[in-house]
Amino acid sequence: MSDEIYTVGVDFGTLSGRALVVRVRDGHELASAEHVYTHAVVTDTLPGSTVRLPSQWALQVPSDYVDVLRTAVPEAVAKAGIDPADVVGIGTDFTACTMVPVRADGTPLCELDGFADRPHAYAKLWRHHSPQPQADRINAVAAQRQESWLPRYGGLISSEWEFAKALEIFDEDPGVYEAMDRFVEAADWIVWQLTGEYLRNACTAGYKGIRQDGRYPSREFLAEVRPGFADFVTEKLDHRIGRLGQRAGELTAQAAAWTGLSEGIAVCVGNVDAHVTVAAADALEPGQLVAIMGTSTCHVMNSDVLRDVPGMCGVVRDGISDGSWGYEAGQSGVGDIFGWFVDNCVPESYHVEARRRGLSLHDHLTELASEQRVGEHGLVALDWHSGNRSVLVDHELSGVMIGQTLETTCVDMYRALLEATAFGTRMIVETFVASGVPVTELVVAGGLLKNRLLMQIYADAVGLPLSIVPSAQAPALGSAIHAATAAGVYDDVPAAAARMGRRTRNAYRPIPENAAAYDRLYREYVAAYEWFGRGNDMMRRLRRIGAQETLGATA
Amino acid sequence: MSDEIYTVGVDFGTLSGRALVVRVRDGHELASAEHVYTHAVVTDTLPGSTVRLPSQWALQVPSDYVDVLRTAVPEAVAKAGIDPADVVGIGTDFTACTMVPVRADGTPLCELDGFADRPHAYAKLWRHHSPQPQADRINAVAAQRQESWLPRYGGLISSEWEFAKALEIFDEDPGVYEAMDRFVEAADWIVWQLTGEYLRNACTAGYKGIRQDGRYPSREFLAEVRPGFADFVTEKLDHRIGRLGQRAGELTAQAAAWTGLSEGIAVCVGNVDAHVTVAAADALEPGQLVAIMGTSTCHVMNSDVLRDVPGMCGVVRDGISDGSWGYEAGQSGVGDIFGWFVDNCVPESYHVEARRRGLSLHDHLTELASEQRVGEHGLVALDWHSGNRSVLVDHELSGVMIGQTLETTCVDMYRALLEATAFGTRMIVETFVASGVPVTELVVAGGLLKNRLLMQIYADAVGLPLSIVPSAQAPALGSAIHAATAAGVYDDVPAAAARMGRRTRNAYRPIPENAAAYDRLYREYVAAYEWFGRGNDMMRRLRRIGAQETLGATA
Repeated sequence: MSDEIYTVGVDFGTLSGRALVVRVRDGHELASAEHVYTHAVVTDTLPGSTVRLPSQWALQVPSDYVDVLRTAVPEAVAKAGIDPADVVGIGTDFTACTMVPVRADGTPLCELDGFADRPHAYAKLWRHHSPQPQADRINAVAAQRQESWLPRYGGLISSEWEFAKALEIFDEDPGVYEAMDRFVEAADWIVWQLTGEYLRNACTAGYKGIRQDGRYPSREFLAEVRPGFADFVTEKLDHRIGRLGQRAGELTAQAAAWTGLSEGIAVCVGNVDAHVTVAAADALEPGQLVAIMGTSTCHVMNSDVLRDVPGMCGVVRDGISDGSWGYEAGQSGVGDIFGWFVDNCVPESYHVEARRRGLSLHDHLTELASEQRVGEHGLVALDWHSGNRSVLVDHELSGVMIGQTLETTCVDMYRALLEATAFGTRMIVETFVASGVPVTELVVAGGLLKNRLLMQIYADAVGLPLSIVPSAQAPALGSAIHAATAAGVYDDVPAAAARMGRRTRNAYRPIPENAAAYDRLYREYVAAYEWFGRGNDMMRRLRRIGAQETLGATA
Repeated sequence: MSDEIYTVGVDFGTLSGRALVVRVRDGHELASAEHVYTHAVVTDTLPGSTVRLPSQWALQVPSDYVDVLRTAVPEAVAKAGIDPADVVGIGTDFTACTMVPVRADGTPLCELDGFADRPHAYAKLWRHHSPQPQADRINAVAAQRQESWLPRYGGLISSEWEFAKALEIFDEDPGVYEAMDRFVEAADWIVWQLTGEYLRNACTAGYKGIRQDGRYPSREFLAEVRPGFADFVTEKLDHRIGRLGQRAGELTAQAAAWTGLSEGIAVCVGNVDAHVTVAAADALEPGQLVAIMGTSTCHVMNSDVLRDVPGMCGVVRDGISDGSWGYEAGQSGVGDIFGWFVDNCVPESYHVEARRRGLSLHDHLTELASEQRVGEHGLVALDWHSGNRSVLVDHELSGVMIGQTLETTCVDMYRALLEATAFGTRMIVETFVASGVPVTELVVAGGLLKNRLLMQIYADAVGLPLSIVPSAQAPALGSAIHAATAAGVYDDVPAAAARMGRRTRNAYRPIPENAAAYDRLYREYVAAYEWFGRGNDMMRRLRRIGAQETLGATA
């Protein structure tokens, strides 16, 4: 062993897992490796089967996750050129809410004889959206009973979360429901594979499992949702809770063999990609809103106050780090709206010119858009192409572009969409503030960081100093920080984050004249937001006209 | 002379003039010829000069109009293979309001020594939009004085019309104003060139010259607009009125030499392109709404009732044909919105595929759009990219696209724009009907006729049987019909139109299920129309933010 010690963070994403080796002393990132899941996202037919899946289904194969431990972890350690014996801990983060139905020993049902062709026996990925009827039922009963936990989720439980996914199994495949001893977050299942023991993390238990003040929804509530579902919590969900950053257990001999790390090292309690990023950014103080910006944006923030904030995804005690109220909010479409625009709305001449200049269309359009002054295009857009998560919590909303003239160019519209997502973030910030939860700093992580125009627009339009997280593997770094805490090197996550995490403060500051112009444009955004989002049901009706007509076509 | 007799119709458009030879017996079109104006539209610098024009200016050179008489008329007669002696009359139609400042003998000021470098000495084309401040002043004084003629123009006088254009000269170049003996519609100036006499046509005198019930705006009114402008009507505008379809005079020896036609044949009173098309369509009965659909759409319709119809361009007694109230309405953007979309919003792959198939992008998109069922795209758009002429009369409005998702394609949006313009026509129809002016048939002429999907959408969305005018030169045919009346072959324009004009009745009928779906989509259009058009000033504010920022950039 050398003097230096290291931890490994493993970030389990939607399509791959990435392992990162980090120096514990200062958070220096030595090397990373990626393993792409063999089965990716299963949406059409089950593996090795002809069983077809209904629309909106999105399954995964749990053995793909184990393959990340077998391949990406040893590859990253090898690339780092360190002695594996110097790795003192491993931490993981996962997409959420991704759920695995298992036997009592942790074996996924899909690996049992006779279950391989049953869709409900597989892991259900976060974006498995088919249990909307189940979510609707849960919400209706909760609202009618005025369940005390409902306001902590902005008034609505998502179809993505644990209860909707479980109820779907109960409704559609009683045999799988019966055989399922436990319904486990993938975030916890992977830790179970590393330690041999099941421990439920406080984060997903709160945000996705409706655990509030130490309790889950009551037996009476569940019985009213479905009579036979009354014992779901006690029989299949409830379990010992592990606090974030705590040691979940020791690396087993088998997991040591998979990873090439030492048996017995610390394994951290499971966690969620967005939430560990707060540590990677060293942004655990109240009021530091961390926005992880990619195809969509997840906002997470600690606060020392508990307030009902309309339209948030959830507020959970100790949900980001111990001793704070962790708030989560989100924008369901951000980078994917820009991607849609580039794919569907940019004329040929721009493609030709971008190729000539050796630029991506995004970079070409961004460069042209950066030559404009604020408001010059005369447009305002609503960024609801994927619906609105916060603060309207309505997936039937859709996008709007206002102000087109015969002089409007695709550059104008591209910029208007960039701005619309910035206004969406401002709306979330203002909703926090208006609810009594202060926001003082905007901290950005994720793939969209590299668009400097977008970042300046966010600083100007939100009106807050904007910090950026320089790590290209921020979630994996956050997991490595948690692992260092679990290994006992640091007293707690904030202490570890202070040494190992980092952000560039004031990377972008609001430019006063831009901010003033955006104040005026934002008022128009708000007016349109209110009218389309709360003032009438036009977008819902538009979807219904189209859906009925489409149904008519197949009748 | 043979047994057959003919007339020539000449249609003076924005960029060229087209002459058409028509058989008087049945309206058969023998041949046509076009002359493109040498100076086209003058927007940057005056011909042979370095004098630069301000923005929104659009001038023409009157000698270009005479060149049409010299070239296109003899060419059309030659192509027709007839004896010029068999042509018994000539009729003309013009863009409006296009104005020529002239001396008492009809000489355009720009042809005089010392005036060639003075912009106000040239013809001002209909779309010369710079006199908006003058129009604003006229409207403010008229509204304050509650001038009785104001409701007949939907409550607003346009910057395109005679008084605004004249007041601009008065304000900006007193020398030209002083030298100008008469301010003449190009529609009448060209007839003056043919007959040697000035006669003012009843159509433009009413629609563009605010002549109502035999009177123009009063001296008192004009004095209040600008003290020195009080005598404009008496000194420079008022003149003997010729009724539509009447003989204005005889072809002079000089004009006979230009055209190759016989000296002394009948020359018809001047007219406007949209208005003569009603005769070409044989659609002079009350309730037959003729829509001339091109880059924009002009709606003209006879009625036997006088009503105040909000947002119409004008209602004029005998303005389309003798004995009826002629209504005019319009949509400021139609084909140019489709053109803007194709130029600015269609991705490369569609360009490639259209080329492979040998289709225009319009045809390619239309074919793909025609495969959709009504409402399938989930969109509704507002067709205000060029503002809204009727019924909102607001050129500061702009376009909107509502309902975009990540699945929305350019085909969806293209179809939504086609539909938006159809809804714009429906709004005009419903406004007529709600005001007590019945509309029973929609008659379409113009270049957009060839888009069969668009025509079916109009029938379905408006809910009226749709007739089409098969002539490719409908305005020139209309002028030839008027010429036949002026020549005394027919008693009046309706009698001539019944023999020489034609339309295909019920070329498109509303398909009940489509009409029902469009009824629902139209309700959404109306809701957006009301909110953006009447409910708030968002679009005006968006333009102002942009304009101020642009000014800021040059400061």
